[in-house]
Amino acid sequence: MENSIINLYFAPLACSLATRIALYESGIDAQYTYVDLKAKRLADGTDFFQISPLGQVPALQTQDNLILTENAAILQYVADHASKAALAPTTVVQRSQLHQWLSFIGTELHKAVFVPLLDPNAPEAVKAYTREKIARRFEVLQSRFSGQEFLLDCFTIADAYLVTVLNWAKPCNIDLTQWSAIHKYYRRLLKRESVAKAVKEEWSLYQEEQARYATLVK
Amino acid sequence: MENSIINLYFAPLACSLATRIALYESGIDAQYTYVDLKAKRLADGTDFFQISPLGQVPALQTQDNLILTENAAILQYVADHASKAALAPTTVVQRSQLHQWLSFIGTELHKAVFVPLLDPNAPEAVKAYTREKIARRFEVLQSRFSGQEFLLDCFTIADAYLVTVLNWAKPCNIDLTQWSAIHKYYRRLLKRESVAKAVKEEWSLYQEEQARYATLVK
Repeated sequence: MENSIINLYFAPLACSLATRIALYESGIDAQYTYVDLKAKRLADGTDFFQISPLGQVPALQTQDNLILTENAAILQYVADHASKAALAPTTVVQRSQLHQWLSFIGTELHKAVFVPLLDPNAPEAVKAYTREKIARRFEVLQSRFSGQEFLLDCFTIADAYLVTVLNWAKPCNIDLTQWSAIHKYYRRLLKRESVAKAVKEEWSLYQEEQARYATLVK
Repeated sequence: MENSIINLYFAPLACSLATRIALYESGIDAQYTYVDLKAKRLADGTDFFQISPLGQVPALQTQDNLILTENAAILQYVADHASKAALAPTTVVQRSQLHQWLSFIGTELHKAVFVPLLDPNAPEAVKAYTREKIARRFEVLQSRFSGQEFLLDCFTIADAYLVTVLNWAKPCNIDLTQWSAIHKYYRRLLKRESVAKAVKEEWSLYQEEQARYATLVK
């Protein structure tokens, strides 16, 4: 692998999708390395814990040969290396608001709501506890989108992250039509070129992965 | 209230302590407004949900009269407004690593571990599920501190956030002496002037608050 190429460690339709969307928006040439999250291994057998200490995607090998983890860090790295794509604002106020939305999505939606609901090993009491957190958090988004098209004034890495976690609403039995502005935002974002391409590709990879897992179980 | 003064909405020993520490480090003159998190009200009766949509501290009223929420956003705002205090690195690589640690603390420690363990309304099944997440996450920190004094090369806002969440280990029955490097880091940070001052002040406010709550229950 050449060190000058950015390499994204991803799993289909996992939160690493946000980085793929950001990379497509940016025009940055990148490698995409599939991670089997059940086995925690790469296709060549490499133990993924050696790359990402929690065994989580995304991990990004940067042009400086640094391994970055955590969505907020990776997305900002991509935005800062593709400044022409304007995936992150440059004014102080808007940059603070970007930090706020990245953190809100990461802490309040991704970790507080979706991780427990998507975890097949989480007991029902955990899922019930988690479901109580949904309404207030989605109301914050509903209120935000009632007046505007994106989280900030234009499409940013925060939208790449948000559309990625909203993809999980359906498998978590969260009906987005309860919040009309969120639902419209989600439908609109899915039609955006970078998002449509990334979701289509990863949906296909996801189906291949599921078929392979099914074979292994037999 | 003058708009030119930063105003931190805080609750004693909550995660807003990280911002107080950063403000003390920065030398920024700020107001500190107490929030009763049980009543979700300020001392003058103001409904705190009108300020912070999730009713969470910290919230920061900035010099631009913007209300910021989310620790990662607020801490970076403080660091960027006190560049002489060097609370956040300026090189691209180190800034990415700062984003990574802020996100790790916010998502993997604060939300994934401490919020459910600190929640008196979380059922035992939730606490048991949460406790399974502790070891791997604390091993990441243990590994980090085995070679260095701070999360990055010097004290940053990420350390202000980390010492704040490590304060909750004791009430969560997490014995930090299991990880010698983390324990040494925590003891060292507690002696740092800004941290010692902030913790002492908020400990005193916390005891007053607990005494008041006890009176209300009677």
